[in-house]
Amino acid sequence: MPTYGQHAAGAGALLAILRDGRARTRGELARLTGLSRSTVSQRLDGLIGSRWVVEGEGSISSGGRPAAVFAFNGGAHVVLAADVGATRARLAVLDLGMNVLAERVAGLPVELGPEPVLGGVADTFRELLAAAGRGPDQVCGVGVGLPGPVEHRTGRPVNPPIMPGWNGFAVPEWLGERLGAPVLVDNDVNVMALGEHWAARPAVDHLIYIKIGTGIGCGIISGGRLHRGARGAAGDVGHIRVPASDAPCRCGNTGCLEAIAGGASMAAALRGAGVEARGSRDVVALMRAGDPRATRLVRQAGREVGTVMAAIVNFFNPSVILIGGDVAAAGEQVLAGVRETIYSRSLPLATQHLGIRAGELGDRAGVVGAAVMVVEHVLAPGSIDRPAAR
Amino acid sequence: MPTYGQHAAGAGALLAILRDGRARTRGELARLTGLSRSTVSQRLDGLIGSRWVVEGEGSISSGGRPAAVFAFNGGAHVVLAADVGATRARLAVLDLGMNVLAERVAGLPVELGPEPVLGGVADTFRELLAAAGRGPDQVCGVGVGLPGPVEHRTGRPVNPPIMPGWNGFAVPEWLGERLGAPVLVDNDVNVMALGEHWAARPAVDHLIYIKIGTGIGCGIISGGRLHRGARGAAGDVGHIRVPASDAPCRCGNTGCLEAIAGGASMAAALRGAGVEARGSRDVVALMRAGDPRATRLVRQAGREVGTVMAAIVNFFNPSVILIGGDVAAAGEQVLAGVRETIYSRSLPLATQHLGIRAGELGDRAGVVGAAVMVVEHVLAPGSIDRPAAR
Repeated sequence: MPTYGQHAAGAGALLAILRDGRARTRGELARLTGLSRSTVSQRLDGLIGSRWVVEGEGSISSGGRPAAVFAFNGGAHVVLAADVGATRARLAVLDLGMNVLAERVAGLPVELGPEPVLGGVADTFRELLAAAGRGPDQVCGVGVGLPGPVEHRTGRPVNPPIMPGWNGFAVPEWLGERLGAPVLVDNDVNVMALGEHWAARPAVDHLIYIKIGTGIGCGIISGGRLHRGARGAAGDVGHIRVPASDAPCRCGNTGCLEAIAGGASMAAALRGAGVEARGSRDVVALMRAGDPRATRLVRQAGREVGTVMAAIVNFFNPSVILIGGDVAAAGEQVLAGVRETIYSRSLPLATQHLGIRAGELGDRAGVVGAAVMVVEHVLAPGSIDRPAAR
Repeated sequence: MPTYGQHAAGAGALLAILRDGRARTRGELARLTGLSRSTVSQRLDGLIGSRWVVEGEGSISSGGRPAAVFAFNGGAHVVLAADVGATRARLAVLDLGMNVLAERVAGLPVELGPEPVLGGVADTFRELLAAAGRGPDQVCGVGVGLPGPVEHRTGRPVNPPIMPGWNGFAVPEWLGERLGAPVLVDNDVNVMALGEHWAARPAVDHLIYIKIGTGIGCGIISGGRLHRGARGAAGDVGHIRVPASDAPCRCGNTGCLEAIAGGASMAAALRGAGVEARGSRDVVALMRAGDPRATRLVRQAGREVGTVMAAIVNFFNPSVILIGGDVAAAGEQVLAGVRETIYSRSLPLATQHLGIRAGELGDRAGVVGAAVMVVEHVLAPGSIDRPAAR
């Protein structure tokens, strides 16, 4: 396993420069960082030892022998990423450029509890690594998105409603022991927002990713960074009260957005009308098959989401709102409802350049975002500079 | 005038260390920054020349002569801060510890236009500097809050509704020429949020400052930084639609929060009932005098603000919501209405540790925030390191 987070002060500054892909000499690195030449040499030795940097030979500059050059060695590292959903998990091996090298969707119902699910995740990661022709020593980190609230600092779920047995479970320690790499965990929607922000970079500083599936939630990027809020609870828009509704919600309140616009509530409404629909996927399938009741429900769900988002647009002034989740597969029917309401209710200055569209990454937003979360952590100057002793 | 933004790379890193107030030797600074000793010496010379650092003599360590020590010289600099309101401006001279050294409230109606108002601001600043016993050469920057949308990057107002003649006016250039220091400008509510965040530091990372005056708007701190949004329009909560209202708003829409809970609308409602009330201050004065209609209006305004904020709490999960502005002077009547609605409508996880209270700085939030904006800019490593040539 490559070392990481075990470099003395200054190594992060060197990597930050070398990450642009251009090879540099010791002299250039000393000049760019202001570090002494001897410090640069020491730090480069450490980074070469941990495979983050490779040494090569530069071109002859002025008659002398060629100076050694140093380059970022991203290709030697991979990230393992898991997007764990209610019934299935998408798992992938990615390189540092966020290319998916191997990928699988596994049936791992989250309600089985943490050890069976995470055991399945670890086993699948090993198979995917082998399929990608990479070794466990090349894994620089593991990213996991979970379908419930997570305390990001510790990576532990906090009273997740659909995840029996997971409350407070030490996911990073459990997985880290088995995979020999640092593990970062966050809420699935936060991770998806990170992925979509990565795909939309560098143009987008303020982004809202809203997932409309069984429930409704969103991930928020403010100034290029994930906004998790004071208690990690930011983005819980599914339980914002919608005017003129008193539908009971699974949260115990009435009138929540999720209780009229979530996939579960739409399926229940269809069942109440005698139509067979188990969940959000069935609602979308019915709509695609031309069922007018399903179409009406989906369009109205878009409007209800739009009503809530119109207020949030005035408050937050995002550059873009991206829509994902099962119901988003209904495409233009949902988007039309959302757009209709936001454009009629939000301020012109806030909507003038506002993009409202489906996410670019589709089902892969979660695994890409989980990998982004890992790479940003592992390559952060503070992380790289952290002494091994800590 | 002290130079600023004219130091070579590394000066910012030195200042960032010295800002804690502890004096350090060249050797310590070299070790802490990883910079070479000669680079440290060069950078210190520049910082001494621009009065940011002073040299002194340290204690004798091991038999030799005492090593020179270097310390942050904050006392040599002051900030000029202006909080320009609709009819009056509060102006102050502050030191870098945000202590107010001299202060005045001047009658400067913003509708007079930029040159008369800013001319009055500049004149008052000169008098306040003299009153504080400081010279113009000690001014490291000028911060201005304006009662309308401002493009922060350029410091120019953008279609401000109550500021005729100000649209696109080059405030920083105009004032900078007269005061010989860099000028930063932002919307008044953003600046107040910065001030209150400074007062609440370091405990509070996510803060919403809501100003209830003639109109209603808020400033947002996400992860310790001001969130301005994609077009600088973030925080415009006054025009969020409130359920069950179709009151016409000055923005041209109906049902806006401001149109039922703003000071101007409450005063109009009282006038409609035959009570003399010109604006938000009269409403609060009537309430304090025991007028039941004014009390009912203010309490209901608190509830309406609470309804909007309840949704925003679910979305944003702030650590604290601070209330300011004229109507906030009504104190517990407003707070009670806001709290009542937020606690009944927001999710338990998001409200568990949520503080909802009046701002700490009262009328000074604007000038303190304007000064914070300047200091953060002037002492930012990127700013300090910027070459003079640019």
